Amino acid sequence: MSDIRTELTDLGEFGLIDKLTSHFTTHIPTTIKGVGDDAAVISISETEAMLISTDMLIEGIHFNLMYTPLMHLGYKAVMVNLSDIFAMNGEAQQITVSLAVSNRFPLEALEELYAGIKKACDFYKVDLIGGDTSSSLSGMMISITAVGKVKKSDVVYRNGAKENDLLVVSGDLGAAYMGLQLLEREKEVYKANPEIQPDLEGNDYLLERQLKPEARQDIVAYLKELEIKPTSMIDVSDGLASEIFHICKASKVGCTVYDEKIPIDAKTSMAALEFNLDPSMCALNGGEDYELLFTIAMEDFDKIKGNPHFTIIGHMTDSNSGINLVDKQGALIPLQAQGWKSF
Amino acid sequence: MSDIRTELTDLGEFGLIDKLTSHFTTHIPTTIKGVGDDAAVISISETEAMLISTDMLIEGIHFNLMYTPLMHLGYKAVMVNLSDIFAMNGEAQQITVSLAVSNRFPLEALEELYAGIKKACDFYKVDLIGGDTSSSLSGMMISITAVGKVKKSDVVYRNGAKENDLLVVSGDLGAAYMGLQLLEREKEVYKANPEIQPDLEGNDYLLERQLKPEARQDIVAYLKELEIKPTSMIDVSDGLASEIFHICKASKVGCTVYDEKIPIDAKTSMAALEFNLDPSMCALNGGEDYELLFTIAMEDFDKIKGNPHFTIIGHMTDSNSGINLVDKQGALIPLQAQGWKSF
Repeated sequence: MSDIRTELTDLGEFGLIDKLTSHFTTHIPTTIKGVGDDAAVISISETEAMLISTDMLIEGIHFNLMYTPLMHLGYKAVMVNLSDIFAMNGEAQQITVSLAVSNRFPLEALEELYAGIKKACDFYKVDLIGGDTSSSLSGMMISITAVGKVKKSDVVYRNGAKENDLLVVSGDLGAAYMGLQLLEREKEVYKANPEIQPDLEGNDYLLERQLKPEARQDIVAYLKELEIKPTSMIDVSDGLASEIFHICKASKVGCTVYDEKIPIDAKTSMAALEFNLDPSMCALNGGEDYELLFTIAMEDFDKIKGNPHFTIIGHMTDSNSGINLVDKQGALIPLQAQGWKSF
Repeated sequence: MSDIRTELTDLGEFGLIDKLTSHFTTHIPTTIKGVGDDAAVISISETEAMLISTDMLIEGIHFNLMYTPLMHLGYKAVMVNLSDIFAMNGEAQQITVSLAVSNRFPLEALEELYAGIKKACDFYKVDLIGGDTSSSLSGMMISITAVGKVKKSDVVYRNGAKENDLLVVSGDLGAAYMGLQLLEREKEVYKANPEIQPDLEGNDYLLERQLKPEARQDIVAYLKELEIKPTSMIDVSDGLASEIFHICKASKVGCTVYDEKIPIDAKTSMAALEFNLDPSMCALNGGEDYELLFTIAMEDFDKIKGNPHFTIIGHMTDSNSGINLVDKQGALIPLQAQGWKSF
């Protein structure tokens, strides 16, 4: 090892992945798409491909067991991975679950976790096909790999967006982030005085979006029904702004997003204002919404117009125009992607 | 959660996996084999299946960075997973790598790790197709999923061993365990006096078996050449005894193993004696050999006889006869599987 020391904090997660994987070459002709999208794509026949996606959740980094019930954690860990399969326009089929835990967890705690994993498997109709359990010196780590299937002609990558395509998002954004803020606030209150009961009433929607979010399997089905094949797609895990950057970078296009178009539930807005936060910033940078963000050709506009599942929030531009937000006053400002900082 | 508390230490890894996964049902018709073998088997066409295997390595549990160079760790982490694909009689094709590390690692350390991962990918001709990097609060965790391919008619499970089948193992056993003992001893010497240079000379074979073991891709090819399809197969990761128990349990047979037949390299025996250990016990319970243990029908005996890659170490019996070791004095004693205790 050389004496040079580059801090991981200087790179960020995506810079790091690029650095580490850029030298790798391909040996197997069935590898259609490797690193760099929501899932890898492997050819399994002339017309079909398999999708593989993997994610690791670490206690203290991705979840806090002080306010995350283990059953919800198990459910969410599965869901997060299935979301990546749906973001490729595929069907989820199987998962593997690797778990490392310290001895502080009794069997009954892990049974709660696996009850959540099973709930997700039953709801999304996927099979648990393998895994690994191991001890850890501290805390809990869950690593899940999801396997999916897709017709080759149906695969949607991040890199297919074209100038003038419409930018569309499913559902609404920012709610999971506000749910997290509520839970964090109650945690602080509890730490200061464990006698006080948590005050989370009336916030069911926000809490559910944080603790038990659903991956948008239904959206993949809707798109098929509407006979729309998006030109690019990604799931909103790190925040809308960060995902827009991924699509633009991969597709070599720019984008104009309209602040006032971003779908935000009234409950999210109210909670944001209570916390002195700008609701749009919560939607743009909060993350964990697990909605699907995609682009469609202008010709498909009529198929989607007025559909309550979808909101058109902008359009793609040439790459020289950059990635911009039109704010509520109509000013064009360069979009910042704070997203999820892993290091 | 109920108030009952069952300690994980009371269950062991395999008891725990059974407990946690026994309620799961199958939803997808392409799932041929889920939890319970070296890899899962998914149907991808009338004649072909995909294999999926996953393993997690945790710093302080599975590896010690005090004496494991990061490049070797990366290589071994890949190899361990490919070994599971070979144990199903399949071809390895792709891997995903998820990595969690604390900020104490600079980029250059991770580049070393990935150089090892790349070496393994190039040697075994597999593609890195995805992964995830994340921070951890302490230490390093590596979770790898391997994807393989196999003709459906070629898949070998753990559960096909029949009474009178011969028990065969590739290569030799116990060397990786003795390599670990050497490294552990030098670590203690170093801790007591960091001025003393490690004395590892003349132990290249044992150290290489511990630090840079190879998965037996070549054995899968030899078996094809010899037109042998094993009736059952498993890789020796946890120790010969433990793997024999897995085959017997899955196949519902007993087994008689001959102590004097177990292949042990002279260097392993000498090192064992130096440490006051019984070489056979090191081979039976040491683990991390990554050799292939399999059973073949009696009719295939002639195909394997005298082949230097293989050693016949015993034969399968009816399950009522139990799992026994014939010791060097000819006494029949019940085999104990200590194996790898994860908790």
